[in-house]
Amino acid sequence: MFSTQAQVLYDFTAEPGNNELSVREGETITITNRNIGGGWLEAKNSRGEVGLVPEDYIEINQAKPFTSGGNAAPLDLSFFDSHMPTPASTAQVDVAQPETPVTPVTPGFSSTSPDETSNGNDPWAVFDSNASGGFSNNWAAQPEGTETGKTSSNAWPSGGQGHPQAYQGPGAEDDEWDEEWDDVKSSGGYAESEAGEGGAINRGGAHGSSMKIALNKFPGFSKSGPELYLLSKLPAKGTKLSVYTGEVGPVWAYPDYQLDCVVADPKKGSKMYGLKSYIEYQVIPTTTNKPVIHRYKHFDWLYERLLEKFGSAIPIPSLPDKQVTGRFEEEFIKMRMERLQGWMSRMCRHPVVSSSEVFQLFLSYKDEKDWKMGKRKAEKDETVGVMVFSTIEPEGLPDLDLTEVEQKCEQFNRFTKAMDDGVKDLLTVGNEHWKRCTGPLPKEYQRIGKAFQNLSSVFISSGYEGEAVLTDALTAAGKTYEEIAQMVAEQPKKDLHFLMETNNEYKGLLGCFPDTIGVHKAAIEKVKEADKLVAAGKITPSDKITMSKRASTMSYSLQAEMNHFHSNRIYDYNRVMQQYLEQQVKFYEMIAEKLRHAHGQFTTM
Amino acid sequence: MFSTQAQVLYDFTAEPGNNELSVREGETITITNRNIGGGWLEAKNSRGEVGLVPEDYIEINQAKPFTSGGNAAPLDLSFFDSHMPTPASTAQVDVAQPETPVTPVTPGFSSTSPDETSNGNDPWAVFDSNASGGFSNNWAAQPEGTETGKTSSNAWPSGGQGHPQAYQGPGAEDDEWDEEWDDVKSSGGYAESEAGEGGAINRGGAHGSSMKIALNKFPGFSKSGPELYLLSKLPAKGTKLSVYTGEVGPVWAYPDYQLDCVVADPKKGSKMYGLKSYIEYQVIPTTTNKPVIHRYKHFDWLYERLLEKFGSAIPIPSLPDKQVTGRFEEEFIKMRMERLQGWMSRMCRHPVVSSSEVFQLFLSYKDEKDWKMGKRKAEKDETVGVMVFSTIEPEGLPDLDLTEVEQKCEQFNRFTKAMDDGVKDLLTVGNEHWKRCTGPLPKEYQRIGKAFQNLSSVFISSGYEGEAVLTDALTAAGKTYEEIAQMVAEQPKKDLHFLMETNNEYKGLLGCFPDTIGVHKAAIEKVKEADKLVAAGKITPSDKITMSKRASTMSYSLQAEMNHFHSNRIYDYNRVMQQYLEQQVKFYEMIAEKLRHAHGQFTTM
Repeated sequence: MFSTQAQVLYDFTAEPGNNELSVREGETITITNRNIGGGWLEAKNSRGEVGLVPEDYIEINQAKPFTSGGNAAPLDLSFFDSHMPTPASTAQVDVAQPETPVTPVTPGFSSTSPDETSNGNDPWAVFDSNASGGFSNNWAAQPEGTETGKTSSNAWPSGGQGHPQAYQGPGAEDDEWDEEWDDVKSSGGYAESEAGEGGAINRGGAHGSSMKIALNKFPGFSKSGPELYLLSKLPAKGTKLSVYTGEVGPVWAYPDYQLDCVVADPKKGSKMYGLKSYIEYQVIPTTTNKPVIHRYKHFDWLYERLLEKFGSAIPIPSLPDKQVTGRFEEEFIKMRMERLQGWMSRMCRHPVVSSSEVFQLFLSYKDEKDWKMGKRKAEKDETVGVMVFSTIEPEGLPDLDLTEVEQKCEQFNRFTKAMDDGVKDLLTVGNEHWKRCTGPLPKEYQRIGKAFQNLSSVFISSGYEGEAVLTDALTAAGKTYEEIAQMVAEQPKKDLHFLMETNNEYKGLLGCFPDTIGVHKAAIEKVKEADKLVAAGKITPSDKITMSKRASTMSYSLQAEMNHFHSNRIYDYNRVMQQYLEQQVKFYEMIAEKLRHAHGQFTTM
Repeated sequence: MFSTQAQVLYDFTAEPGNNELSVREGETITITNRNIGGGWLEAKNSRGEVGLVPEDYIEINQAKPFTSGGNAAPLDLSFFDSHMPTPASTAQVDVAQPETPVTPVTPGFSSTSPDETSNGNDPWAVFDSNASGGFSNNWAAQPEGTETGKTSSNAWPSGGQGHPQAYQGPGAEDDEWDEEWDDVKSSGGYAESEAGEGGAINRGGAHGSSMKIALNKFPGFSKSGPELYLLSKLPAKGTKLSVYTGEVGPVWAYPDYQLDCVVADPKKGSKMYGLKSYIEYQVIPTTTNKPVIHRYKHFDWLYERLLEKFGSAIPIPSLPDKQVTGRFEEEFIKMRMERLQGWMSRMCRHPVVSSSEVFQLFLSYKDEKDWKMGKRKAEKDETVGVMVFSTIEPEGLPDLDLTEVEQKCEQFNRFTKAMDDGVKDLLTVGNEHWKRCTGPLPKEYQRIGKAFQNLSSVFISSGYEGEAVLTDALTAAGKTYEEIAQMVAEQPKKDLHFLMETNNEYKGLLGCFPDTIGVHKAAIEKVKEADKLVAAGKITPSDKITMSKRASTMSYSLQAEMNHFHSNRIYDYNRVMQQYLEQQVKFYEMIAEKLRHAHGQFTTM
């Protein structure tokens, strides 16, 4: 059933010594082993070289016969029977998953992101074209056993190398902090240590990028996942997640007390007789005020759990880049901590996420045993992926018809796409401004300052009497411009930094929406096909009603999430713009004040 | 006596249709006609092509045998007898001079100034090396009949293309205002119209450059001129110019009332049935308040007269560029007027210049007849060149010995050179700053403004209620940054402009000093040779005493001039720095105020 031929979608350069195989976009390779795991496949190129390639970088050729069938192709629902795993079977399918889950390596996170240059991979375009088209063959043409995650990888927005590089300078490179992941090596097999090392494919830029929704747990169901929930006969498991009618429409149930936490006090730890070092952070929840200790890999574990559990309904932004590097250790640690803080605060602010068992465990485990047990339990959670919708209950809200559901979905898609563009634009401009403010502009003010002081020195040498007032004033003016140069260079850290960080966070959040909305889109398409499925005897009329009802629930969930997003967005942008403008005002006032002082030193004639 | 071989010093590109010959630096050409006049020679190149070349661009080869004689060469004073013209003979030598004098075309004023790239032509270096050397052969090795003005042209500092180009944009080119010179065409022969048209060699950059001292009136006496005065037996002619002891040392006699004038009301005139057009300016002296009308060519005539008469003693800055062109007629006229005003004010401020007959004529001629008669008289003035020193009388000041004279001269040379460097440095920096402030910087602020407004538009499209305050504030912030962009782009005209103009004026003034100081240097060297000349029986012991006394007079003149320069410099820089800083303060305050307003529009949460 599986062809061994595959097409390379993006360039991939092998890391020496890792059994990897360099491949070029457009190259045809032969898959020699699919059972590597951890997002890797073994492949052979035309020169007979064999090595590992990331599965998201390639497209298995067999998919073609199906997609080329188009609208006229007969419905092939065979996968419906053969590939619909029950939640119980999910765990079995997942055997290849290592104990400590590893973020799948993904295209678009390297510094030359293919997604950024190729319009064909625009994650938003997929939905836009669906929106304008009529009959969709998403359902019918779903290829069997497409395990490569190609469709899913299409939905991944570009990682982009934005803000961080701008003020961290060009010196970014792998550093010893990658060794935080070394303990993963000792705990598992080959695949884990490869991905775990993070050396093969740079994860840099993951902050401010998309999530990978947890659907990859179910092979063959990347975007066709929703039917798992839409037609599920199983009773809902796990905590109920209510959606209420608020002033602005459907809203999540918000807790009375807003959780928050502080990430602080980074400490360097080491193991293996000091050969391996890592950083430990204190995480102090405002509820208990009792600090817990976490390493970056624990945050990453939490991210994986949240993504798996909530990713279909809630955009879970990526963690800050694992490989964001500063020129100095301190700078790096500070930056990562600041961003972990931002990520944690955002998670704390989310009523669904913050009240989840796994998040509570992370924030307030009692001891090592408690943590380990909680971890195991969380990893065995079956209400993940689209099944999270089974726990959502719209309270006193009428069922929505499909047109309404679709309209809402389209509206959110349009908005998040537009905001994604706007945010990226601001980041680009901000990045350029950052460079100018820290580069050529202060240099110029410094040169002006030097030119004034130089002229003053010449004047002093004149031997002409009575020009001390002028020369002193001219020297002072020169020094003032040197001070201004310094101020200009340091200002971005005081204002632009926060504007950039906030927009970077939003870029990350917005990058999750194509996946989240994609799940809804897929569900809508499936409900649209319900009549045909009933006619073909594949589902019962009762199933059709259930599907429609469940699509309505999904829509309420999405609306609640969008309203949560909007409310946070208004708060965040209000706050960051105020902060930015306040600092800008101070900056210009201080310059004016300095120049006024310099002006006062000249004689009034 | 004249060799016909010449060496080309600078590249010269012929203007088509003007009988000119293109030549390249280093090329050897044959002079075929020296009697062209107007700064031109006829020459033939190795390919047999014949055409006109500017005489300042070439070096006649015959000079070499003399200079190669060095210190050991026997004194050749033959030129002393054969080439020492009496002031009376000067007028005869000058027959080739057209009625309306034409500024000699000069190297270093084209946009690719050879002086700027060649250190060998550094006008200051000549004196620096003399200062450190002992016995100088300036006197002995003076080549006979060096009419090419090579030595003199060495003393010409680079014209440089500074400030004007920066804010007039790249569109500068010949324009119709060149036609102001067309009437010259009708009044004379070939040479005049060539130079008069200004087409062959771009005079652009003349403003802010050096003067050409009037020594070229006396062939063979470029820097050997001083002996004309040092050994003159003629009684002094013309108004006495007194030097007194002031608080700061020797000073000119300053008038009780400081003359000034206003250059205003430019009007376009035309002739030849409207085919030729020109601009007429009103010049209104503060003494009479009675306006007189002058065209640019009249200013140029005045400049020529002042240069000829005072250039050996007083730096006479060049007029503003004839070919400074703006993108728009109005801009051009405004700029030229502003600079003519600056030039006239500087001349008015000079006690010697402003009280001279020719300057008074220019400012307050009664009628056309008065003007024409005065012109003719001024052109026949014999007390020009170094002979101006014969009218200078140090009042109650003791004769200076040669050591003192030399020390002063060196000091002034060092200072003016250092200031020249300082001013040029400031101009370079200012020019770059101008470009940044009018180019990339406002563009960036505009993009920031657009990005904010764009994000605001996206937010408006959210459909979420109650975010009007945020979107309004965000739009306002965006507009504020667009306004700031505008302010940034317009600011240089309000502050940097005047700083640049003043420094440009000083660059012009300072560029005259190598010539002025050169005359003094040459005089000092000649006085040093006096003993040998006495021994050789070339001059009498009494002549020697006269020479020394006259060198002292020259030194007092130079000191008075330097003190005048210093006093003006202190005034000018004090004023311009105050103006600059005042405008800068206003600028930053206004930005702060605008941003404060923008900040206030966000909600305080």
